[in-house]
Amino acid sequence: VTFTAREIASKIKAEVIGDNDVTLTHVVDLSNGNEGGLSFAASTKYLDQLKQTKSSAVIVSPELVPHCQSFALVSKDPYLSFALAAQMLHPVKPFSPGVHPSAVICKDCQIGDNVYIGPHVVVDAKCVIGAGSYIGAGSIISAPSTIGDGARFISGVTITGDCVIGERVILHPGVVIGSDGFGLANDQGVWQKIPQLGKVVIGNDVEVGANTTIDRGALMDTVIEDGVKLDNQIQVAHNVKIGAHTAVAGCVGIAGSATIGKHCGIGGGAGIQGHIEITDGVQVTGMTKISQSIDTPGVYTSGTAAQDNKKWMRNAMRFKELNEIVQRLQILEKKIE
Amino acid sequence: VTFTAREIASKIKAEVIGDNDVTLTHVVDLSNGNEGGLSFAASTKYLDQLKQTKSSAVIVSPELVPHCQSFALVSKDPYLSFALAAQMLHPVKPFSPGVHPSAVICKDCQIGDNVYIGPHVVVDAKCVIGAGSYIGAGSIISAPSTIGDGARFISGVTITGDCVIGERVILHPGVVIGSDGFGLANDQGVWQKIPQLGKVVIGNDVEVGANTTIDRGALMDTVIEDGVKLDNQIQVAHNVKIGAHTAVAGCVGIAGSATIGKHCGIGGGAGIQGHIEITDGVQVTGMTKISQSIDTPGVYTSGTAAQDNKKWMRNAMRFKELNEIVQRLQILEKKIE
Amino acid sequence: VTFTAREIASKIKAEVIGDNDVTLTHVVDLSNGNEGGLSFAASTKYLDQLKQTKSSAVIVSPELVPHCQSFALVSKDPYLSFALAAQMLHPVKPFSPGVHPSAVICKDCQIGDNVYIGPHVVVDAKCVIGAGSYIGAGSIISAPSTIGDGARFISGVTITGDCVIGERVILHPGVVIGSDGFGLANDQGVWQKIPQLGKVVIGNDVEVGANTTIDRGALMDTVIEDGVKLDNQIQVAHNVKIGAHTAVAGCVGIAGSATIGKHCGIGGGAGIQGHIEITDGVQVTGMTKISQSIDTPGVYTSGTAAQDNKKWMRNAMRFKELNEIVQRLQILEKKIE
Repeated sequence: VTFTAREIASKIKAEVIGDNDVTLTHVVDLSNGNEGGLSFAASTKYLDQLKQTKSSAVIVSPELVPHCQSFALVSKDPYLSFALAAQMLHPVKPFSPGVHPSAVICKDCQIGDNVYIGPHVVVDAKCVIGAGSYIGAGSIISAPSTIGDGARFISGVTITGDCVIGERVILHPGVVIGSDGFGLANDQGVWQKIPQLGKVVIGNDVEVGANTTIDRGALMDTVIEDGVKLDNQIQVAHNVKIGAHTAVAGCVGIAGSATIGKHCGIGGGAGIQGHIEITDGVQVTGMTKISQSIDTPGVYTSGTAAQDNKKWMRNAMRFKELNEIVQRLQILEKKIE
Repeated sequence: VTFTAREIASKIKAEVIGDNDVTLTHVVDLSNGNEGGLSFAASTKYLDQLKQTKSSAVIVSPELVPHCQSFALVSKDPYLSFALAAQMLHPVKPFSPGVHPSAVICKDCQIGDNVYIGPHVVVDAKCVIGAGSYIGAGSIISAPSTIGDGARFISGVTITGDCVIGERVILHPGVVIGSDGFGLANDQGVWQKIPQLGKVVIGNDVEVGANTTIDRGALMDTVIEDGVKLDNQIQVAHNVKIGAHTAVAGCVGIAGSATIGKHCGIGGGAGIQGHIEITDGVQVTGMTKISQSIDTPGVYTSGTAAQDNKKWMRNAMRFKELNEIVQRLQILEKKIE
Repeated sequence: VTFTAREIASKIKAEVIGDNDVTLTHVVDLSNGNEGGLSFAASTKYLDQLKQTKSSAVIVSPELVPHCQSFALVSKDPYLSFALAAQMLHPVKPFSPGVHPSAVICKDCQIGDNVYIGPHVVVDAKCVIGAGSYIGAGSIISAPSTIGDGARFISGVTITGDCVIGERVILHPGVVIGSDGFGLANDQGVWQKIPQLGKVVIGNDVEVGANTTIDRGALMDTVIEDGVKLDNQIQVAHNVKIGAHTAVAGCVGIAGSATIGKHCGIGGGAGIQGHIEITDGVQVTGMTKISQSIDTPGVYTSGTAAQDNKKWMRNAMRFKELNEIVQRLQILEKKIE
């Protein structure tokens, strides 16, 4: 795959400064540039690299143009332009459709055109797999589940029954979708299992990272709307709803029946308590504990900042009596008045 | 499966108000009710739904009876009664015993009656699988391990050697049991691996959620007692002991040689330090760090609550000097005396 | 495998007190000792056990020698000596090389001598597997990846393409290496995927615990240097670099482009923010959030200590206004001056 700078610029909302016809063959880190390479520089932090790069062209913001020794593709949003250019130069590798002889496919499945099913895949009865899908080695799809067109299951993906998955959904290795939620009722100290009867419903253009788990609903469904992006090692409990185009970073835990709005960003390792509601456009920073509903967009944080352990121990000791400390302050304030 | 209200009431510790012979076919969310449906309402929060439900019957607490437009099954513990009713109406699907031809079963295994072994399962030498067990597709059971009667391994479960698993144990996809613990000794800066020689011993009626990992013991065993319920994405390190009927929510990490008592509840994302002991009946809230032993039952919490990020930054800055702040307060107190 | 005390002592930097020729057959917990058993006691905490042990010999520190009822192997570092002795008495089980007939091996792979490839393994085109490697059941190795000599992949390991793995690397079940990083650019509210084009490069003698995930680099590589030990359920994001001989405990999340130095120790459940740098020799305690670079070796901690939930709630409420509280203190201080 090669493009001229002009061809790329026209599709990434950028303008060429220099040779419109220079051939670009790949994207490359600015510090590591070479012939045919297209890089990007989004801030003045990379000025030195920009001045020395051996890339054939660099996507830059307007203010960086004077510092660009290579040809420039000027964009108001270099990072987005770079993403689009990388998609052009590095399209997903095509695959040859077909079913590997070691795969176990139940007879009454419905498998669309141009589907690839890899070694040791299992597709259970009554499953539907949409046209153009890639189901990588070792994936297990249990009945009855429906997978839309253009799915890309890298390998080792597990879909239990009762999942409805949209189009162009990417699932990475180790993803488990549709496992039982953690539904228990206490019977004089002994836990009774509550059958988990809901579905997992996933929209279009969703991507789910390695070893992330999404539990089925208890009675209603667990819902992941269009365009949601989940990183690795995330736990999504039963009846959770994640609004369209929300991005969740690695290691986040979302407890049962929590609702997260559209266009939110949840930082790595954050925890969302069950049965709360987070409105659209909320940003939660890494490792924050959200234990109450949030009805105002903004950036939310909990915890404390790291410091030397010995100092921390003294401060943490004080935290345990913080309320009493404030009461002592109030007494002083009254005395002084 | 159908039951009359009377049949269900007699087994769930409830009393019918209305038609004892109404036919119930399934459980359903109160807001989504329909004919044959059995719902539940546990608090006045659901009064509006209760008044409008189309369910044939609703399990309610006594004080909700006047508001119930459908037939009622009155219970002191509607949630527990609902769990038991759901178990009656939605029993685990029966399976046809047999070994899928693609499974690889070592000859000297001992496999009980009425066992199902799915596609691409591997059962290594000297393993014992109890009667009536279901070993779902892609599971790997290594030698020598013993699995009790009535196991239900959904799919993709990994049991390494030296595991002893009780009866009626449910393991969800991606569970790994018996992996090596993180045993290392430092040799002038280089880590030496300490062979992990203990077992994992799991009691009866234990359930383990998707992608949870339980390491084998180093010298002694890792022990999960009867009735313990572990959610998804939990890490249980070597030599941990979890007491009977304790429930652990998703994403919890339990470090090596920690002991957790019976009937505890550990909230999602909590962390339990190694070599500590938590007594029976302790509740730990979500994302709490437990770094010392707990010898008194109660509810324990650490961390801070989420707030606007800018305000948080100022407060977190102050936390770093909290001990000095208290010392300044003490000076003022002395001056004023 | 058996050794005399003399044979073991000579290799573990210890000195025998007692019968040099006593036969040792296995390591065993001090409290559980028996004939042929070798135990260790590292501190006076275990004095009672030491006095009563039935082990044939115990590795002890010099000050414990007087209390040792069995033969003693005296070492300045009993824990390290024990690790080395355990390696001698419990070597990794040998395996018979060969490829299981159910494995799917692409023709143009290069597989070294004395390699074992287990049931249902998939090795994709253009992969290289070094001599003496053990690739356990259900592992999936995608093209093109290179695995050094003496690998030990227990089972169910997933290597996507473009991974370069050193010698004697141990990967536990559920490990995923080379999955796509979480690279996204926002296009008017919709996320555009940034193709992930880098490798994962893993050095020699690295061990990775069950269900840990390591993403490939975006443009440059994700790098895990020699001797790094990763526990279970860890997330290593794209472009992370972990320095040689660093140990990371379970459930840690390391965000994109973070660099961790050599000989660091990261406690369980800690979170390392992206694009920061941690120098060599840093210790991070469990569940600590590191959100800024650290350029000084030391021990770092964040968070608060657990306490009774009701008291915590009052203190956490005060934390939210901590800055204002300090301002009130400042006003008092000025008034009193």
